[in-house]
Amino acid sequence: MIAVDAMGGDYAPQEIVAGALAAQREHGIAVTLSGPPARLRPVLLALGAQGELRVVPAEDIVGMDEGALASWRRPRSSIAVACQLVRRGQAAAVVSAGSTGGIVATARLRLRSLPGVPRPGLAVVLPTYPKPTVLIDAGATADPKPEMLVQFGQLGVAYAQIALGAAAPRVGLLTIGAEPGKGNMLTRRAHELLAAEPQHGALPLSFAGNLEGGDLMTGAVDVIVTDGFTGNVALKTLEGSMRFAAGELRSALTGTRTARVGTMLQRRGLRALNQRLDAETYGGAALLGLGGTVVIAHGASTARAVSSACVLAANLARGEITDKIRERLGTAGERPARHFLRRDR
Amino acid sequence: MIAVDAMGGDYAPQEIVAGALAAQREHGIAVTLSGPPARLRPVLLALGAQGELRVVPAEDIVGMDEGALASWRRPRSSIAVACQLVRRGQAAAVVSAGSTGGIVATARLRLRSLPGVPRPGLAVVLPTYPKPTVLIDAGATADPKPEMLVQFGQLGVAYAQIALGAAAPRVGLLTIGAEPGKGNMLTRRAHELLAAEPQHGALPLSFAGNLEGGDLMTGAVDVIVTDGFTGNVALKTLEGSMRFAAGELRSALTGTRTARVGTMLQRRGLRALNQRLDAETYGGAALLGLGGTVVIAHGASTARAVSSACVLAANLARGEITDKIRERLGTAGERPARHFLRRDR
Repeated sequence: MIAVDAMGGDYAPQEIVAGALAAQREHGIAVTLSGPPARLRPVLLALGAQGELRVVPAEDIVGMDEGALASWRRPRSSIAVACQLVRRGQAAAVVSAGSTGGIVATARLRLRSLPGVPRPGLAVVLPTYPKPTVLIDAGATADPKPEMLVQFGQLGVAYAQIALGAAAPRVGLLTIGAEPGKGNMLTRRAHELLAAEPQHGALPLSFAGNLEGGDLMTGAVDVIVTDGFTGNVALKTLEGSMRFAAGELRSALTGTRTARVGTMLQRRGLRALNQRLDAETYGGAALLGLGGTVVIAHGASTARAVSSACVLAANLARGEITDKIRERLGTAGERPARHFLRRDR
Repeated sequence: MIAVDAMGGDYAPQEIVAGALAAQREHGIAVTLSGPPARLRPVLLALGAQGELRVVPAEDIVGMDEGALASWRRPRSSIAVACQLVRRGQAAAVVSAGSTGGIVATARLRLRSLPGVPRPGLAVVLPTYPKPTVLIDAGATADPKPEMLVQFGQLGVAYAQIALGAAAPRVGLLTIGAEPGKGNMLTRRAHELLAAEPQHGALPLSFAGNLEGGDLMTGAVDVIVTDGFTGNVALKTLEGSMRFAAGELRSALTGTRTARVGTMLQRRGLRALNQRLDAETYGGAALLGLGGTVVIAHGASTARAVSSACVLAANLARGEITDKIRERLGTAGERPARHFLRRDR
């Protein structure tokens, strides 16, 4: 069972509900929606799906422009209720297209932390060739300690194995300068820890050393580890420069009449290129390191993107990524940590 | 007079000497070369330029793979000697295509710091439309204090005014999330300082607020301020994704015979695109905040790139960027700071 936050995203609830329905109908993934029943019922009706998806009432909504604070103010928001379903064991994972800041804060508050992972990491898949690359953390933890980068490496390896089928994922550290002594204070220390023997019974990482920003798209490793600040800047820079290149290309290709004829002759190749660069097919970012996985779809997600996110969430749940992470960290026997501010109900 | 490190760069000394010569012949910029006379003489001879450029002997060389430590070990390196020429007032600025790490470390050691600027910042120009954007720091100071980001803002404004002719440059802060409270500890504090009244008689900055990685190529502001770690990752990511996009484009455009015909019809447009994305025309990165400017050309610089770097260095020197920076910081009357580890000779 996947819990879908029906009210997160620019096109909520219509596109979210349509995507969740497609995941259930076409991929056989059982879906529960969280949101205000009075608003979801007409949407389901319009889709000819009344009674087909379970709806768990959540009357409050975290807006797309709201950040971390909203998670405190809104215990009955659709994202908070979706997280509670996972917490109570009624759902295996959450899907939301809401604001990343609000989702991360809510999930940290409503889901348990895993033992040995004080902070979660956000994993995204970069469309590299011949195989995709996992970037973690893409924005969940802005000021991690060096030890947390090692934990992110373990989360990323578990993700690469389950979601991408990588057999023995290689891990690189995003920094400046390829040599071990290069970087800032955080990455110099993290390099030492990544290169050392694993601690506390954790499984060893296959550490490939330092990477630079220019290596993000080369597919040199399977998992790229970084702090949430740098990872978010790098990811947004990547997206922005792809948009820039596409814009430049468009004006270069349509600059003269001869060029326009050329473009017509190339339509098929350009369509393939667009699909390669289309993030929607990758299903969204996965928040890892909590006692339940949250897949964060893009805010502008359409039904197709939401459906992909549900497939990713189901794959991660089916692969038992949380157990895999405990195993990698050597904490399989330990009880989940309680969040210091959260009360059980 | 511009001091050119004749031995830095992948194609040193041939391309460096040729570029320096072109700057002097075609742009009327007086150039001094630093390097081993026995190696430079035959190069000048082959270019038909014996006696045309002054050569200051420097027998040692900092290799392209050497980093910061080399600056301590090699006081007679070609880059150290070029910096000494500026220090002694015999040259107005330095140009080098050597390794960035080695150049920054050498310049910090051999040139005085400016009062009020404890660490230098590396400024690069991003080819945005309709006007270019300055990114600072692109890699000189990996772990700055929040106050230093404000100083980088002042350096960037001086650079935008002199090198790019910007009248009233607007400054943005690179971070994650557009709201003031977003970011990591460094950028949250830097945001407060940038938004506050300037201190110690400094000129006010026109602060436009937070920017994200996706805004780097939109030309939204004139100067983007960041720490050297994030700036370097973002710049390399930008370059890497442009290379990726170009590679994808090439395979999309040559995938089928029809597409190849299309490409022929579009050659002119694609050539214009390549030129827009060609960093060589921008002359290189400028190390600012020291008692003398160092322009760092790309390691793979050809004669054309070295010549552009000399033009940039001459423009910055002619615009008296060092005086402009002191004026902006309100330290125009103060004496240059001595480096704590440097002895005067």
